[in-house]
Amino acid sequence: MVVPPYFEVPPRAYGGVESVVADLTDALMARGHEVTLIGAGEQRTGTRFVPVWPRPVPERLGEPFPEVVHAALVRRVIQRLAARSGLDIVHDHTLAGPLNAPAYAALGLPTVVTMHGPVNQDLHQLYSALRDDIHLVAISERQRQLAPELNWAGMVHNAVRVETFPFRADKGDHALFLGRFHPEKAPHLALEAAHAVGMPLILAGKCAEPIEKEYFEREVRPRLTDQDVVFGVADAEAKRRLLAEARCLLFPVRWEEPFGMVMIEAMACGTPVVALRGGAVPEVVVDGVTGYVCDEPDQLPDALRRLSAIDPAACRQRVVEHFDVGRLGAGYEAAYRKVLARADAGTDSLRRLRREYGELDAALDRRYSRTRRRHSGATHSRTAADRTSGLDRVSGADRTAGKAAKAGSA
Amino acid sequence: MVVPPYFEVPPRAYGGVESVVADLTDALMARGHEVTLIGAGEQRTGTRFVPVWPRPVPERLGEPFPEVVHAALVRRVIQRLAARSGLDIVHDHTLAGPLNAPAYAALGLPTVVTMHGPVNQDLHQLYSALRDDIHLVAISERQRQLAPELNWAGMVHNAVRVETFPFRADKGDHALFLGRFHPEKAPHLALEAAHAVGMPLILAGKCAEPIEKEYFEREVRPRLTDQDVVFGVADAEAKRRLLAEARCLLFPVRWEEPFGMVMIEAMACGTPVVALRGGAVPEVVVDGVTGYVCDEPDQLPDALRRLSAIDPAACRQRVVEHFDVGRLGAGYEAAYRKVLARADAGTDSLRRLRREYGELDAALDRRYSRTRRRHSGATHSRTAADRTSGLDRVSGADRTAGKAAKAGSA
Repeated sequence: MVVPPYFEVPPRAYGGVESVVADLTDALMARGHEVTLIGAGEQRTGTRFVPVWPRPVPERLGEPFPEVVHAALVRRVIQRLAARSGLDIVHDHTLAGPLNAPAYAALGLPTVVTMHGPVNQDLHQLYSALRDDIHLVAISERQRQLAPELNWAGMVHNAVRVETFPFRADKGDHALFLGRFHPEKAPHLALEAAHAVGMPLILAGKCAEPIEKEYFEREVRPRLTDQDVVFGVADAEAKRRLLAEARCLLFPVRWEEPFGMVMIEAMACGTPVVALRGGAVPEVVVDGVTGYVCDEPDQLPDALRRLSAIDPAACRQRVVEHFDVGRLGAGYEAAYRKVLARADAGTDSLRRLRREYGELDAALDRRYSRTRRRHSGATHSRTAADRTSGLDRVSGADRTAGKAAKAGSA
Repeated sequence: MVVPPYFEVPPRAYGGVESVVADLTDALMARGHEVTLIGAGEQRTGTRFVPVWPRPVPERLGEPFPEVVHAALVRRVIQRLAARSGLDIVHDHTLAGPLNAPAYAALGLPTVVTMHGPVNQDLHQLYSALRDDIHLVAISERQRQLAPELNWAGMVHNAVRVETFPFRADKGDHALFLGRFHPEKAPHLALEAAHAVGMPLILAGKCAEPIEKEYFEREVRPRLTDQDVVFGVADAEAKRRLLAEARCLLFPVRWEEPFGMVMIEAMACGTPVVALRGGAVPEVVVDGVTGYVCDEPDQLPDALRRLSAIDPAACRQRVVEHFDVGRLGAGYEAAYRKVLARADAGTDSLRRLRREYGELDAALDRRYSRTRRRHSGATHSRTAADRTSGLDRVSGADRTAGKAAKAGSA
């Protein structure tokens, strides 16, 4: 399990990917798997942890350099681990790490990559170029629909630890917006919908980037009334309280939401979600059961009027059944097994191994024929050179013996 | 020859690396080599050119994403080229590209990387992590001295096309500073030295980054007199005129200058260089012959007083003999030959190939023993499975025949 070097796992504050990875490693261990986490900083999970940076480097997020050196450092660790303790699979959550996939394939290790972000031009271009080097896991069906030609190995929805979210059936009279102040998240539409039915709105979230500040001043501030509250950034505790107390979460996204963690966090608290259809929204919210999925902003007020038809217990039940960390572990285990089965069936890694065998063979031939041309007269077969070079870690005889021993123990 | 996707080769404006690469490809072709350039935009050199981006993306310089996707795209091209037309070596000038070195090694191709930047913590960490995956070429002896433990294959000084620089023996009465307005380049020391001997100074260079602007206001502006001229950024033509007309170039660097192109550009115009010792300076300037190399700023004025002892013709001769593009081509050819000889001698690629053979063998064993465990009863040897799979591009029999044919033609 490879994570970027910017935050610890689990993260102390920011770090959406790191949070999911922390839950995933725990869930995999609970299923009896051995997991090694490679990242930055200190041991903070129950897994074996190999830090390739002494401390996380959040201040370097967005720079090219840490991505590239991280990939180089991680590859050394994985080569060492594969040689020493044996690995089955590499699950990489970084940007540059998947460039190592051919080196991992040479060790017999397939590389799994979770598509944490939206299927935009950048990620699509990268994962298209990497082709079957990597086995992609989607976090929503929508991602796979948007790019069916990529090398998907499965879909596993993100998840939460349901027991860490307080269930509350008696709600306040206000709606909640919780997310970035960004046109993609469209809190101005939440304000318009809430006001159309006389509901106050609490708005909580990040407003730090220039685009967020500009959008807030232009679209959000003019729509605020005395009854609305701009909360700012909510920490883990405040987030849970805000989610549990709200009459509903308003989620009027105007983009291809790759998953939408806040929707399952709200539902875990028994809070319905009133959303616009976008990205994974219809996969997460069961329309009419755990909230409403509207096609247009002018349908949001009517949905708010029908909130009494939604049972808070049904909201929580939806998360328990579909978005709990237990599902996360089972889902990724199934994806890993599928990837390994591809390899076993000779459709993938094995084919690659055979192809590389052939390429190595041809490369050795080229080298030897060049050497022969230069040192004419000195004719030696490759096998003889191999045996006398002393460079092989495992001699031909050792390999045969090893095979026999393995066959005997199988 | 792999270049970053931000500028064309040769560059239309900025692009130090791209300028060197343009000269290098020309010089290699002049020596009879076939060169394929992989980058962005249009064909602008005499070599075969494969664009992996339809246009350069200078606006994305500094982002992680283009580095990573560029490496993924380039690898596909090199795999295709190696299969079709045969390559001998990959020379990569990008940041993330060297992560592909193991994949190139699997094709029998060594990877050469030029250390274009200073030996700082970042580059040192990256090239240390990559170890003998890559064969480094220094652009100065100083770089190798600073990091002797890296896997150096040679040193090739940067170069210019001497004939594109005008020689002028009769000089003006002013000194010239040409470089970034940055504490590392220290133009304020140039002002102090020139004024100490009553010489006006022309200052030309970039002043765009916040640190450059702040430094200019704090250290440069207060030292300017009515006789000095702040020229701004000089284009190719203005640069040549400024260099040819100046009494000398003042180069009072306060950092580990990796090479210092402007020194050889000045000398090509017959203009002496008065410099502070830093990085590659003493390798480029012959003290007392093509200028003066001072240890401390307070020695600069005395050097300026002794400029009449420097012969402009000797300055140009130094560049003709040591820093012309002909030397660049010969130097890299020698480095490439050394890298290929390492491979032929079995000290490097061959050792790697053998090691990977061993690893592949072990990986195949693991896969097969797993398959055997699952489908107990179905016992088949690996050789039999290989022969019947139909997946091999080259069957065992074909390989043997190929070997015989090659041996016969050698």
